Amino acid sequence: MGIILYELAGADPALRLSPHCWKVRMALAHKGLEAQGLPWRFTEKQAIAFSGQGRVPVLIDDEEVICDSWNIALHLEARYPDAPALFPGEGAIALSHFVNAWADSALLPAILRVILLDIYDCLDPVDREYFRASREQRLGQSLEAVVADRPSNLSALERTLMPLRQVLAEQDFLSGGAPAYADYCVFGMFMWARCSSATPLLDKGDPVSLWRERLLDRFDGLARSAPCLDTEHP
Amino acid sequence: MGIILYELAGADPALRLSPHCWKVRMALAHKGLEAQGLPWRFTEKQAIAFSGQGRVPVLIDDEEVICDSWNIALHLEARYPDAPALFPGEGAIALSHFVNAWADSALLPAILRVILLDIYDCLDPVDREYFRASREQRLGQSLEAVVADRPSNLSALERTLMPLRQVLAEQDFLSGGAPAYADYCVFGMFMWARCSSATPLLDKGDPVSLWRERLLDRFDGLARSAPCLDTEHP
Repeated sequence: MGIILYELAGADPALRLSPHCWKVRMALAHKGLEAQGLPWRFTEKQAIAFSGQGRVPVLIDDEEVICDSWNIALHLEARYPDAPALFPGEGAIALSHFVNAWADSALLPAILRVILLDIYDCLDPVDREYFRASREQRLGQSLEAVVADRPSNLSALERTLMPLRQVLAEQDFLSGGAPAYADYCVFGMFMWARCSSATPLLDKGDPVSLWRERLLDRFDGLARSAPCLDTEHP
Repeated sequence: MGIILYELAGADPALRLSPHCWKVRMALAHKGLEAQGLPWRFTEKQAIAFSGQGRVPVLIDDEEVICDSWNIALHLEARYPDAPALFPGEGAIALSHFVNAWADSALLPAILRVILLDIYDCLDPVDREYFRASREQRLGQSLEAVVADRPSNLSALERTLMPLRQVLAEQDFLSGGAPAYADYCVFGMFMWARCSSATPLLDKGDPVSLWRERLLDRFDGLARSAPCLDTEHP
């Protein structure tokens, strides 16, 4: 039955709005695997109840069900060892784990404070109430209050990007001369922003922006051709 | 003539106060190399003028002079390929580069805001004026003002530590089952704090603390036996 990926979608089902699902999309392409991406909404817990939990990405690979983007990457690497490596070299899983943790715990919250309301606006009406309530509880503020001070949120994002910028000024990809899973972990965050918001996060000459362009072009422009809100930066 | 390492020292020349020099010390031990550590003060620019710049670490390996901890690590890896690898596996240099950049640009400033005045107190009187003037200019505040709000500085450090904590809860070292240069990049920051300040930065059961303990014990307790201010945590 091939590979199926449940992905968070917006009101427009073609808009794919999860950074973690984007990590998986890029990992699948890296492995040269075709997958059917099924749009899913936050409130459709029923549709993925078979996975024993309530979040996406959920991957079905033949009969096997795998949740969580990190687990999915490890699964793909183990199951398709002859395809290009997501973790090239013996230390790569351990070190990529740190890059992934940094993307999730430092970069994601910094981007979130810029695009939170834009995400809300993209969502299907059925998801909006759930999204507002869960995020406002988590952040202890209204969505509007979180994004209110945009200059300060953008400058916090700038500070967060420092290690990424420093490294990408000296090498083409986080993984070296070619991208691998560590790159997709971080790139997923930028795809999330691109798909849900028209706010530019990076200046044109920024090494991070040049790296993002390289990844947008990868796999015949897979990421670049995905429907997005950031029409300023095709 | 063997290996010589110029290291930043305090009023007590046995106190070695540079995070970057600690990275190199651990890297040398990892390679099984003996080195003579020469104490150096900020204002002794003359003593390292032969290196063509004014900062430590400076390593002299036979006739060769290498500056900057990252360059020194690459040098050691290339020059001593038969000793244990600092960068195990093909992707390890590129990914460790990111860990190092994170340590320098995110972790270092977060720890600095807690221990800045303690560092000042450790310095040799000849260095104090230089240190105060250069740091106050860089930070745009008096040393006292930087550290004034300790609870808020400690909670910013907590947030910064999140990706590290997340990963070390699941694996013994950043590099996987055994430490390598990526670990020393981060551990150097904690040795800098330990040598210059009695302020505890980590709770006892914290995965980051347990990892630090493992590295303090490494190489027959090289780091643990170094003179330090953190006498609460021997």
